[in-house]
Amino acid sequence: MNLNDTHDPARSSWVASAREPDTDFPLQNLPYGTFSAIGDAAQRVGVAIGDQVLDLGAVHRAGLLHGDAADAAALAARDGLAALMALPPQPLSALRAAVFSLLCNGTETSARAQAQAADLLQPARRLHLHLPCQVRGYTDFLASEHHTARNGQLKGLADPVPENYRWVPVAYHGRASSIVVSGTPVVRPHGQWKTAGGEVVFGPVDALDFELEMGVFVGRGNPQGTPVRTAEAHAHIFGLCLLNDWSSKAVQWWEQMLGPFLGKNFATSISPWIVTQEALEPFRIAAPARPSGLPALLPYLRTEGHAKAGTWNISLSAALQTASMRDRGAPPAVVSRTHLRHLCWTPAQMLAHHTSNGCNLQTGDLLGTGTISGPDDESRACMTELTRAGREPVELPCGERRPWLADGDEVVLHARAEVPGFVPIGFGQCRGVIAPAQPY
Amino acid sequence: MNLNDTHDPARSSWVASAREPDTDFPLQNLPYGTFSAIGDAAQRVGVAIGDQVLDLGAVHRAGLLHGDAADAAALAARDGLAALMALPPQPLSALRAAVFSLLCNGTETSARAQAQAADLLQPARRLHLHLPCQVRGYTDFLASEHHTARNGQLKGLADPVPENYRWVPVAYHGRASSIVVSGTPVVRPHGQWKTAGGEVVFGPVDALDFELEMGVFVGRGNPQGTPVRTAEAHAHIFGLCLLNDWSSKAVQWWEQMLGPFLGKNFATSISPWIVTQEALEPFRIAAPARPSGLPALLPYLRTEGHAKAGTWNISLSAALQTASMRDRGAPPAVVSRTHLRHLCWTPAQMLAHHTSNGCNLQTGDLLGTGTISGPDDESRACMTELTRAGREPVELPCGERRPWLADGDEVVLHARAEVPGFVPIGFGQCRGVIAPAQPY
Repeated sequence: MNLNDTHDPARSSWVASAREPDTDFPLQNLPYGTFSAIGDAAQRVGVAIGDQVLDLGAVHRAGLLHGDAADAAALAARDGLAALMALPPQPLSALRAAVFSLLCNGTETSARAQAQAADLLQPARRLHLHLPCQVRGYTDFLASEHHTARNGQLKGLADPVPENYRWVPVAYHGRASSIVVSGTPVVRPHGQWKTAGGEVVFGPVDALDFELEMGVFVGRGNPQGTPVRTAEAHAHIFGLCLLNDWSSKAVQWWEQMLGPFLGKNFATSISPWIVTQEALEPFRIAAPARPSGLPALLPYLRTEGHAKAGTWNISLSAALQTASMRDRGAPPAVVSRTHLRHLCWTPAQMLAHHTSNGCNLQTGDLLGTGTISGPDDESRACMTELTRAGREPVELPCGERRPWLADGDEVVLHARAEVPGFVPIGFGQCRGVIAPAQPY
Repeated sequence: MNLNDTHDPARSSWVASAREPDTDFPLQNLPYGTFSAIGDAAQRVGVAIGDQVLDLGAVHRAGLLHGDAADAAALAARDGLAALMALPPQPLSALRAAVFSLLCNGTETSARAQAQAADLLQPARRLHLHLPCQVRGYTDFLASEHHTARNGQLKGLADPVPENYRWVPVAYHGRASSIVVSGTPVVRPHGQWKTAGGEVVFGPVDALDFELEMGVFVGRGNPQGTPVRTAEAHAHIFGLCLLNDWSSKAVQWWEQMLGPFLGKNFATSISPWIVTQEALEPFRIAAPARPSGLPALLPYLRTEGHAKAGTWNISLSAALQTASMRDRGAPPAVVSRTHLRHLCWTPAQMLAHHTSNGCNLQTGDLLGTGTISGPDDESRACMTELTRAGREPVELPCGERRPWLADGDEVVLHARAEVPGFVPIGFGQCRGVIAPAQPY
């Protein structure tokens, strides 16, 4: 089969659940993750297909791969997903094509794979999913002007969007150690803040928020002192995941002086599957046009003429399920629907800016997009915007209201790449339930 | 010999250079670092003694250590310094006592060590010194109110020291990947800033600064969700080093919105030797008194009654040597003299604050103190303060003037812990020379 054919919508998998129309993981996706079997500490690299996980090491040991694909799978099985992420595009493409072929109905290799399916595939629900790799450095951008403007307005700033915003892809370094995989409960943190009455207090935080973002995993890094150009940034992007930038807002507002610190570094959740840049290829769209009237971008940030410096056609949602909704079997209620195109900076621009001073990125680094809010009310992608900082609580089914997240609330993020003529692919879920604060 | 006697000023080493009165590394110091021999890629853990480095693995293989000390040295030799840093205090004390005994004149074990000195010791000048360990997370505090106030005044802020400053140990997450060891040239970065004429430009930065800080290396970490109390913070501090937080100030001021990012993340230099908390024991001083008139600290930040939550009696200096001074053999000219007591937050308070929301610290994390400026002009610990943001250039010997750092300038940081009745100990040097910008 043609190596470039891994997006062919006419193909489908012999794994039945991968043919369901609403699956996030059809044959055309093939995202990577790290899993362990229950009762076995060993972490292994897998590929999601429908509701199953393909064990890459088992596939390799079964002799179903050859050449570059076999080498790449062996590397992943021995050294983990980060080793795979550091590879150049060619062996990664070879591995994707080989896995596609194995899992595709009616190819030469798939009959052998199907015969050994019990050794190669395991139901995802019976596995522990871990962080895909150790996150080295974590940087979070602020790429939605809508999010920036609404926050600035809530704070009563004279200039809700500061002058530098449309020149600089604003970002801060986040905390990598506290990044957790979807499903990990998030304990309500303690923090210091100033109350409306002017008192400075320390205790379990009240104004607890989610922020709907995507994470961009760096594949190949760059040496210190060697910037990556916008045109070449795609060669350093391994893939994307969902990211929930949990925030305690009163703490963040009070501590603000050198950027977010304890207001955010207690936990950041990501989805377990990295959807590769190659899987996202059919869903590319151009970088958003710069609004008329603004000065031209500095040359190092321009995307014109760089086919892979744009963004992707990815729609996203955040849903909320309270404890009482869960008890009654009510599904999570969608509170936000938005789209990656609402961001004014693309991942390629973020990567070019981050390295423009010679800062070295490393395999396993994660770049957050910032809250992906759009212009409409529906696309407000955090509680702060949705509730106007707690003043207008979100109304939930069953009559509950939320100015902020309450203990027992679970936030579920989703995303899906869609474009006519191709099979839609999804990102799985990024879930996290708020656990009560522990005594300090 | 008495295990608690490793600070005894009556003892001295059979290594002659460790008896020089101005050595940073007398017998009572014994800092840890990571080195390799020239032409040998293998990185090894060593202890600085005078102008020599003791190879901990060689000492272990020679059978000169026993019990906990032998186990600790074996661990370091096999897994690197980070493995040693993660140990609890008891084996670390045992190793310190054993190394002290080996290097001390007239002890039982020292005769054997001295007989094998050629195998155990190597002159530091013939070795490559590396980062002591991989820095996991890097957080930089802003613990000098004097630095904060002078910067606020230069910016013309109505409140140069914001209201939250005396409540919150303000900090931001820095970039770990670009931390380099002393001696690594620092390439002048490119950056984006707004000129005095109002134009936004991108190019090699002009306003390049050093910032004299100390770094606190975390030994044992804490699990996510489990804060470390101020009283217990000392049990998580492995030791201290020098830190130069290189900054391009015009970039930092222009990008400022979520804290320092490209203005600082191109490079941070640290000294190669970690002076352990145990070595610093005689030099402890209490946390600075809170100025009268301020509200009491929140309980979680109080140090009263916690003997090890204070700071240390450490004086510091920064010196500058231009290329032409180097050519003429002129020594670096001291431009700043300051003291750790000028900070208003102690390392224990920093660690307690950082973890107060459950954020997990890990072995090998580095906490920067922030620029250690004091009240006097002499104690201004960066160019921004010394030159009032370039307006009043520093006058150097030979008639040179510097509004900011120029290509070829080398910055040399020093620090020394001193207290009557004990042998002073130093931190070695943290050096870095500015290399010209590379073409973008």
